[in-house]
Amino acid sequence: MATSNLEIARKEYYERLRPNDLAPLWEVMSSLVTPQPASACQPAIWHYATIRDQVHEAGTLITAKEAERRVLVLENPGLPGQSRITTSLYAGLQLILPGEIAPAHRHTQSALRFVVEGNGAYTAVEGEKTIMREGDFVITPSWTWHDHGNESDEPMVWLDGLDIPITQLFDASFAEPLGEDAQSLSRPQGDSIARYGDGLLPVDITPRATSPVFSYPYERTREALTVLARGSQGDDCHGIRMKYANPTTGGYAIPTMATFMQLLPSGFSGETYRSTDATVFSVVEGAGRLELPGETMQWGQRDTFVVPSWCPYRLVAEEESVLFSFSDRAVQEKLGLWREVRGGEG
Amino acid sequence: MATSNLEIARKEYYERLRPNDLAPLWEVMSSLVTPQPASACQPAIWHYATIRDQVHEAGTLITAKEAERRVLVLENPGLPGQSRITTSLYAGLQLILPGEIAPAHRHTQSALRFVVEGNGAYTAVEGEKTIMREGDFVITPSWTWHDHGNESDEPMVWLDGLDIPITQLFDASFAEPLGEDAQSLSRPQGDSIARYGDGLLPVDITPRATSPVFSYPYERTREALTVLARGSQGDDCHGIRMKYANPTTGGYAIPTMATFMQLLPSGFSGETYRSTDATVFSVVEGAGRLELPGETMQWGQRDTFVVPSWCPYRLVAEEESVLFSFSDRAVQEKLGLWREVRGGEG
Amino acid sequence: MATSNLEIARKEYYERLRPNDLAPLWEVMSSLVTPQPASACQPAIWHYATIRDQVHEAGTLITAKEAERRVLVLENPGLPGQSRITTSLYAGLQLILPGEIAPAHRHTQSALRFVVEGNGAYTAVEGEKTIMREGDFVITPSWTWHDHGNESDEPMVWLDGLDIPITQLFDASFAEPLGEDAQSLSRPQGDSIARYGDGLLPVDITPRATSPVFSYPYERTREALTVLARGSQGDDCHGIRMKYANPTTGGYAIPTMATFMQLLPSGFSGETYRSTDATVFSVVEGAGRLELPGETMQWGQRDTFVVPSWCPYRLVAEEESVLFSFSDRAVQEKLGLWREVRGGEG
Amino acid sequence: MATSNLEIARKEYYERLRPNDLAPLWEVMSSLVTPQPASACQPAIWHYATIRDQVHEAGTLITAKEAERRVLVLENPGLPGQSRITTSLYAGLQLILPGEIAPAHRHTQSALRFVVEGNGAYTAVEGEKTIMREGDFVITPSWTWHDHGNESDEPMVWLDGLDIPITQLFDASFAEPLGEDAQSLSRPQGDSIARYGDGLLPVDITPRATSPVFSYPYERTREALTVLARGSQGDDCHGIRMKYANPTTGGYAIPTMATFMQLLPSGFSGETYRSTDATVFSVVEGAGRLELPGETMQWGQRDTFVVPSWCPYRLVAEEESVLFSFSDRAVQEKLGLWREVRGGEG
Repeated sequence: MATSNLEIARKEYYERLRPNDLAPLWEVMSSLVTPQPASACQPAIWHYATIRDQVHEAGTLITAKEAERRVLVLENPGLPGQSRITTSLYAGLQLILPGEIAPAHRHTQSALRFVVEGNGAYTAVEGEKTIMREGDFVITPSWTWHDHGNESDEPMVWLDGLDIPITQLFDASFAEPLGEDAQSLSRPQGDSIARYGDGLLPVDITPRATSPVFSYPYERTREALTVLARGSQGDDCHGIRMKYANPTTGGYAIPTMATFMQLLPSGFSGETYRSTDATVFSVVEGAGRLELPGETMQWGQRDTFVVPSWCPYRLVAEEESVLFSFSDRAVQEKLGLWREVRGGEG
Repeated sequence: MATSNLEIARKEYYERLRPNDLAPLWEVMSSLVTPQPASACQPAIWHYATIRDQVHEAGTLITAKEAERRVLVLENPGLPGQSRITTSLYAGLQLILPGEIAPAHRHTQSALRFVVEGNGAYTAVEGEKTIMREGDFVITPSWTWHDHGNESDEPMVWLDGLDIPITQLFDASFAEPLGEDAQSLSRPQGDSIARYGDGLLPVDITPRATSPVFSYPYERTREALTVLARGSQGDDCHGIRMKYANPTTGGYAIPTMATFMQLLPSGFSGETYRSTDATVFSVVEGAGRLELPGETMQWGQRDTFVVPSWCPYRLVAEEESVLFSFSDRAVQEKLGLWREVRGGEG
Repeated sequence: MATSNLEIARKEYYERLRPNDLAPLWEVMSSLVTPQPASACQPAIWHYATIRDQVHEAGTLITAKEAERRVLVLENPGLPGQSRITTSLYAGLQLILPGEIAPAHRHTQSALRFVVEGNGAYTAVEGEKTIMREGDFVITPSWTWHDHGNESDEPMVWLDGLDIPITQLFDASFAEPLGEDAQSLSRPQGDSIARYGDGLLPVDITPRATSPVFSYPYERTREALTVLARGSQGDDCHGIRMKYANPTTGGYAIPTMATFMQLLPSGFSGETYRSTDATVFSVVEGAGRLELPGETMQWGQRDTFVVPSWCPYRLVAEEESVLFSFSDRAVQEKLGLWREVRGGEG
Repeated sequence: MATSNLEIARKEYYERLRPNDLAPLWEVMSSLVTPQPASACQPAIWHYATIRDQVHEAGTLITAKEAERRVLVLENPGLPGQSRITTSLYAGLQLILPGEIAPAHRHTQSALRFVVEGNGAYTAVEGEKTIMREGDFVITPSWTWHDHGNESDEPMVWLDGLDIPITQLFDASFAEPLGEDAQSLSRPQGDSIARYGDGLLPVDITPRATSPVFSYPYERTREALTVLARGSQGDDCHGIRMKYANPTTGGYAIPTMATFMQLLPSGFSGETYRSTDATVFSVVEGAGRLELPGETMQWGQRDTFVVPSWCPYRLVAEEESVLFSFSDRAVQEKLGLWREVRGGEG
């Protein structure tokens, strides 16, 4: 059969396949099994100075009742309209004004909250309330009742991170409202840290999928980083980088999203790094640069930036800096997919 | 502000958001976090009698050289053009003709092969060759060199299952050819079963992500099911249903795809069942019905059918039947997403 | 055969067996496999007021050079001459005088130190020094270099707990001196708590058999107990009882010895409890009673007492009390041997 | 103080300590924490030709009723009167005559049975009966009802291995009779192998402490060894040595006793090996030598021999040989105590 005849025969064959819900793999295989990660996800940065007004403007357009959803999605410019900051993760900036309450609900999706601006709002999880401050990392675990409110006199903005695209892929989303504004509180403030976060654990505890320490205050995290920085320059690529841990397993605090905090000493100039977990960073303190192939992004306090899977990057700190970050590494490691390369051309 | 003015203000606001890669969550939230699984995935069946000719026709249109990709994708009718049989899984029927060899390669994606028709082709994995027969379940683990060929005188068709959409979501695809048609063999046939599958394990073995028993012959599986059926009717929903296991951990044989084999006694009429893992079935022996809400599908030997996430279904066996199946339950359990409900209206 | 003839025949048979290193099981079986735990281990208490002088007197009889071994073994009165406080555990009170240094060494045996009296001596483990205070719990892990000294101006007495009988049973004791008085220090004070004990962990950490947090300061433990006591009366038998945890696994801090700290509110009157792990208690604060079948022991600050396996007991607190305790439960759980019963006759 | 005065003072001090249940550590420390394993356990061999008559003679002195205990303990010559073959393990040879039944009972101690002579007796565990043949390895798990009998027309002798000294150390022995000769059978013969031992597992299985495959027939084990020997000479010290595995975890079949089977090719001359797990060997096939420092023991079929902890040894096979063995390595690994050295002076 001559090539053109073969092509015609194939086309005709493909048309006969379609009604049987069959399709030729050989026409699409190269886009399904790629030699390297090949998504449309792009590096991007959201400068807080640029977007802060728009975040706060949402407060005038969305009522207190809708406040639960008063979030600006950080959409990856390579994935427009998909409500994703990476292929597998959702991120947004949520505004909660003084006096507001978001009704209690729960959903399959795990969520993290990282406080970007403001002090004094609270989140309640599993019968315990925690007051949030800048730099605090708070978890609302999968299928756990949670609600929040702001009894302070200043607005709060936090970075929301959710595993929405993961739950979509597995088609396993469930959600329901509690039917009340706030869950009833059954444990004193500070109970979960005392119970799980001070080197002790309940005698009969069994491993939990999500860390029962649902609030990791920045004050404590910062002090730990400060002590560690006294003894070491840290990793060549990452400086002093630690993961938030689940004390019942030693694993990541959230089963679907790895969360990290890192200190870059002033003048730190990291080596090039790449890994398969596209990563979202939020700048807590300091200023510096993200160096990418053919591009440099300047970051400062409260900025959010994202580095795609397998994209080589370097971090440079112009002053002592602290960066929060999260990625899907927690899942990739469980599935045997995660890879990294240190060094190489930046 | 009157509602219409508010709407206008919002629209204008949304337009100002876009250049900053921001989007309003409140417009899309209900489609992201749904009260129940809500994908477009549909139940479907591929009757082998209907599609067999098209599968074999591929042999005339795709050369031996292209044989590695001579697969007809089973596309879910609800997800056209996406090369998916469920939201998270790929499935296809692969044809390999006598005398053909598919060159050795490896990729991040895990693959399973379940032999639907034919006997005598081989798969080689990690230096060991195994001859395949109908009903055999063979694994090509993530990032492991594998090649196959057909030294018999009959064509073989197997069902391919891969975690392609999962690897896509995490943007972690890697692939490479070995550069040779076949890997060199370093272990005698039967070595992996003797080493890992006979109740023994190497003294110093550490847990493996994927079962080192890469071939589970049907002869042995069938005999086990027969013994078990002597002592029990099995589960009310599933009959005698077993998972293929990784002997180094007790977990699923593949870290991303749970695989099962089940025997339904003649006359078995299962209770209604639903779970969040959309499941692909391949009929090894027997005949029966899949009863869905408002629809019944008749299945027989070599047919493939799929049940979406959270879709209630019942299995009825008109004669003693054996069904192979696979799903993403292995991942959902690791992430804490998996749910099931037994009974209820079908 | 008449009974007496049979007995004679058996005796003669037994004598013929002996040269072949054979012995009749039926003569000893009832003492080997008993219906309930049946060791000679007895309940006992060491009142600090009674023994303190003798502990300090050791300082005049044992030189600084011998100080490493200047320990009074707490010998269970039912197991005289065996250097055991329970069938499986060793305990002793160690005295270290101002200016003394104990040379660095390591051994297979895991050791715990619980400070009973004094403040200011130090222990160094894995390149890090920690200053010890009353109520602190310090670990010297198996096969880890450790040394200690007293640079303060007061003597210190701590309770030593070791798994010596366990290592003896398995005939797996190894020990060696470093050849220097003190190991070189490579990490700043506080490094291990900052690295492993503040809710964070190194990104690439793998599970450790022994907690890398080698020092658990009482100040922090006491504060956690205080918070927990605000929200709960705790367990009916144990009050607020927590285990010291290994943050890399969620398991016990030491793989062979479970360690606990418990707060009994003033007036606490516990229910009867028994378990298979004979337990050693050291009183940090308060006063109360240990009620045993037919016997009551009065305990106060710095006293040590032991409850044998399966011995029913009740704890009564006459004032708010804090008790440190340790047992072999960590091993028994791993081996599937551990049992407990709550309630029942005291 | 002059030395002699010091000695006198110390003696007097020791006497004052005793009434307080205190003892000086410095007098005994060197025997408690030794530089290397230092127990009295000795290498020993029991030639079956020598002891077979005495084993069978027990049948004339111990009635059917007492048959449950008709066992000759293999006492280590270095540990006389202790009913131990190593410091931590018990071993014995049990005789069961045609027609006898041993009443059902259970105990905390785990037991293994390895058939040395005879075919056709049975063991029943968890409602399933298995017929035993020479070379079969059978488990009676901790606290599981078990009974056995001999419905064949020949006597059977098996090697019993129990963790009695371990249970003694932890003072955790429980035992009770069922009150009936035989438990009722609820599963057909072969059920447990089909359910757990053919590469499949029940879908919802959770890890089990002891392998649910309670019988490992020699026929299957031998065939696996034969296949493996085709592809490899095996380990330089051990030949083709495999562990019996728990398919629900990948760990040892029994949580307290590691069990192994090894094939030594004819002419095999192993390298010197030592490890901390004193090991008991039973010869299934073949003949050879055990070379120890200053001593050589000749072994043949059905002989039992023991190598103490840390004793260097070499195995030499004069013909193709198969050796069953067991040790406490399963515990030592859990506790972090296990060590081995390959090579070195024999």
